[in-house]
Amino acid sequence: MSLKLFELVGTDAERPFSPYCWRTRMALAHKGLTAESIPWRFTEKAAVAAHGSEKVPVMLDGDRAVADSWAIANYLEDSYPDRPSLFGGAGGRAMARFMNAWGDIAVVGGIFPMIIADIPNNLAAEDADYFRTSREARFGKRLEEVMASRDQAVTGFRKSLEPLRQTLKTQAFIGGDAPDYADYIVFGGFQWARVVSPFLLLEESDSIHAWRERLLDAFDGLARKSPGHPV
Amino acid sequence: MSLKLFELVGTDAERPFSPYCWRTRMALAHKGLTAESIPWRFTEKAAVAAHGSEKVPVMLDGDRAVADSWAIANYLEDSYPDRPSLFGGAGGRAMARFMNAWGDIAVVGGIFPMIIADIPNNLAAEDADYFRTSREARFGKRLEEVMASRDQAVTGFRKSLEPLRQTLKTQAFIGGDAPDYADYIVFGGFQWARVVSPFLLLEESDSIHAWRERLLDAFDGLARKSPGHPV
Repeated sequence: MSLKLFELVGTDAERPFSPYCWRTRMALAHKGLTAESIPWRFTEKAAVAAHGSEKVPVMLDGDRAVADSWAIANYLEDSYPDRPSLFGGAGGRAMARFMNAWGDIAVVGGIFPMIIADIPNNLAAEDADYFRTSREARFGKRLEEVMASRDQAVTGFRKSLEPLRQTLKTQAFIGGDAPDYADYIVFGGFQWARVVSPFLLLEESDSIHAWRERLLDAFDGLARKSPGHPV
Repeated sequence: MSLKLFELVGTDAERPFSPYCWRTRMALAHKGLTAESIPWRFTEKAAVAAHGSEKVPVMLDGDRAVADSWAIANYLEDSYPDRPSLFGGAGGRAMARFMNAWGDIAVVGGIFPMIIADIPNNLAAEDADYFRTSREARFGKRLEEVMASRDQAVTGFRKSLEPLRQTLKTQAFIGGDAPDYADYIVFGGFQWARVVSPFLLLEESDSIHAWRERLLDAFDGLARKSPGHPV
């Protein structure tokens, strides 16, 4: 049971920032597992290609490689069934697939344009060049132009989180009284932003702000102890 | 075990149309239960006030009244634990709270402006007046004005369903291989639209269209047999 996890970092190897890697970090902690972190940078394609992936997270469990945060969560749930469940049953696992898509689209997709030009500040020159070139091609404009309207965009982003806000009216976590993988899916996006950008995504009065605080405190402050900006 | 369900109807008592009542109808079928339908119209406030509610669905189980589709689903799950589960475990039940909010906001809230002026066509004069007056006050404009841009609005609505579309890439239902309450939450909105409006919400090539077909066929065609427009 020797786990290793490739995690996206920039100049600071102690500052992993990928939203997907954070989903996995939180999932590992939920299962009471630890993994040796292997810092990985955008331009180190060969290191993960050796394990059949183009991206991180990639988790190694002995000789076996598992790529993609969703696949890793399922692998952990199946491989460690006696430890706390990430999904709370078959229905939760199936619905978490939807949460994963909502997290990708509404949360990661919603946050990205608001922090995109802050990201290169965390990267070494070679990685910053790669990031800028590939993302500017994707958006068809300069990173700074993508991010220019974030003070307006954040209003729409906060509104798009309304289903989560409604959920938190009657329960502390998406997973109910305690967090589960559905929470980590969404939290990963917020932790990513916290690590790389000073931009304030949430108002302090927002119940989602309080939910994020609870997750920053989870597992003895695992996420809060990781370097980041004030949120 | 004598169940009765107040269901919103218009001029045709055999044509229940509330998205929330349809969530309950599907949940009852999932549990293999039948309930005597009590047709209820917008202006019949006294009939449900007698059971402590202002709205439908209200379900009566003998002397006990349960109001609100979410409360009813939980009541059914707890009261009939030996029948097929609506949530597939505690994690599914917790996450379904989020699905319920997403269904309310993205699906019911997204569909409403696109079918709003069609709804009075299904109502008797008194109910149509009530509906028009109350909803025009809510939107601050005439129903026809709210609905005027639906040919454009439907594009944004279809886009907003992307998390569901992504989910259906790897599983047949939000509940996994078979539908569960998470599916009925979302489906209720589509069935509501189908019953009251000829407006086409989905393109035939959309995987969500195929998912809706499967739910129209579920439980021996329960939803498809209910009168509605072609979809």
